[in-house]
Amino acid sequence: MKSAASVSVHRFSKQGIREENDWLAVEEPLEIRLDFGPTGLRQQKSISITMRTPGDDRELATGFLFTEGIIQNIQQIQDITHLPAYSPEETDNIILVKLDESATVDLNRLERNFYTSSSCGVCGKASIAAVKTCSNVQLPVGRPTFAEALIHQLPHQLRQQQALFEHTGGLHAAALFDPEGQLLLLREDVGRHNAVDKLIGAALFEGWVPLQNQLILVSGRASFELVQKALMAGIPLLAAVGAPSSLAVQLAKDSGMSVLGFVRNDRFNIYSGAERIVATRPITK
Amino acid sequence: MKSAASVSVHRFSKQGIREENDWLAVEEPLEIRLDFGPTGLRQQKSISITMRTPGDDRELATGFLFTEGIIQNIQQIQDITHLPAYSPEETDNIILVKLDESATVDLNRLERNFYTSSSCGVCGKASIAAVKTCSNVQLPVGRPTFAEALIHQLPHQLRQQQALFEHTGGLHAAALFDPEGQLLLLREDVGRHNAVDKLIGAALFEGWVPLQNQLILVSGRASFELVQKALMAGIPLLAAVGAPSSLAVQLAKDSGMSVLGFVRNDRFNIYSGAERIVATRPITK
Repeated sequence: MKSAASVSVHRFSKQGIREENDWLAVEEPLEIRLDFGPTGLRQQKSISITMRTPGDDRELATGFLFTEGIIQNIQQIQDITHLPAYSPEETDNIILVKLDESATVDLNRLERNFYTSSSCGVCGKASIAAVKTCSNVQLPVGRPTFAEALIHQLPHQLRQQQALFEHTGGLHAAALFDPEGQLLLLREDVGRHNAVDKLIGAALFEGWVPLQNQLILVSGRASFELVQKALMAGIPLLAAVGAPSSLAVQLAKDSGMSVLGFVRNDRFNIYSGAERIVATRPITK
Repeated sequence: MKSAASVSVHRFSKQGIREENDWLAVEEPLEIRLDFGPTGLRQQKSISITMRTPGDDRELATGFLFTEGIIQNIQQIQDITHLPAYSPEETDNIILVKLDESATVDLNRLERNFYTSSSCGVCGKASIAAVKTCSNVQLPVGRPTFAEALIHQLPHQLRQQQALFEHTGGLHAAALFDPEGQLLLLREDVGRHNAVDKLIGAALFEGWVPLQNQLILVSGRASFELVQKALMAGIPLLAAVGAPSSLAVQLAKDSGMSVLGFVRNDRFNIYSGAERIVATRPITK
């Protein structure tokens, strides 16, 4: 599975026009299939097809199932394997997740939630209320706290570690940091929701979820679905290099999550949960 | 329907920490419902829920139905109206599209394609072949052509006109330009696919589709789904401020579409269809 592909381009700049090779982020569909049910009544169902950057598919599938509330813990997963492809060109684009008998999959809920949403995660849910019914995560109140100076360092660390982006310029990243600002995990994908699912999937494999002492930084904007996914993993602070949306901030406020936006160039804005940031300077109005 | 919402933030910068008001891009779910079938056998079906920035909902729904191949022309739409909301807080989040009797809606195809994809457009389709079976658009070969200098001007015009982005920093934009580089239409949304659907919907209302003499510029990256949507509208050139993905370029090459990436700061790369760009300088290897 390749994450970057070489392509010939015409590069126009002030220095001239050159024909040369460039690297593109690979985008390929991934179908997630569930195998579930009690012995003798097992069934398989395709529940999602998402456009993703190949690599970390097991983490992506695991993170997706968890952040969408289909599984409650990683012990419910017995096995994850790629299936043979439809065609020789498209290898490794179907992944089969075999669930434990204890995992109860609500098919009606799946239909309702995923009828239209897959890779966009939360599109199928009509409101914050819908997220809350499938999440009983309680974030720790007022903690952990992070120093202002620590926040300013996050985007530098992200960029240093974002290997694929350097080649292609075409990938979203999600990174997990500890309270001391150490980068614990980084995942990249053409879809920002996938980058977060891969990250949370990896944390599940590490046994770190709920991630109640960590923060997550995303390279792009903070949408509703990213707040929802962070909430499912118990992450108390979501920082974004870009802007948050109105609904993202609303869900964060309702859930007690801290949301920071425009975290770049030695500045950032706090949109909710300011009590988790330790400011060393006075706040003026 | 509001497109931007005011929120109180703590703004951290080198100049200090200030508590002040900021503007956020509004993100709200929109459910698209179809009313279709022959007289006496009419039925309604919810086919998509997408997170979008309110405003231009009729254009969004129309563009979505068209770029996903559910309708073939705007004459098939008899009426588009917002339905009463589920709750007083969430107004105007359901839109009902009444189709002409002549519009044949293939429910099986809807289920297959949209089972998981809605707002992400093409996620549900496994391959380029799937796009091709639902599109019979032929792009004009080798035309229209655009001067190199014209391409360099596009991002400036986009930015000047992108009103909401200036306030919120949180919106994707899609703009339609004529062969002389005049901006014809601009639409914004929290979802880049929605910005393109709104733009193509608006063009459909204008009676301009297929847009065989125009180009489209998007503010972010060029994914597979954006190339697919541009292809459905017959647009021969897609320019992106960000990077294209591998599959976006592959679909463009297979369809004879020109794709440009990194169109900013007086440079750009051509990934496919270089014959539509008139270079005034020699090309070196």
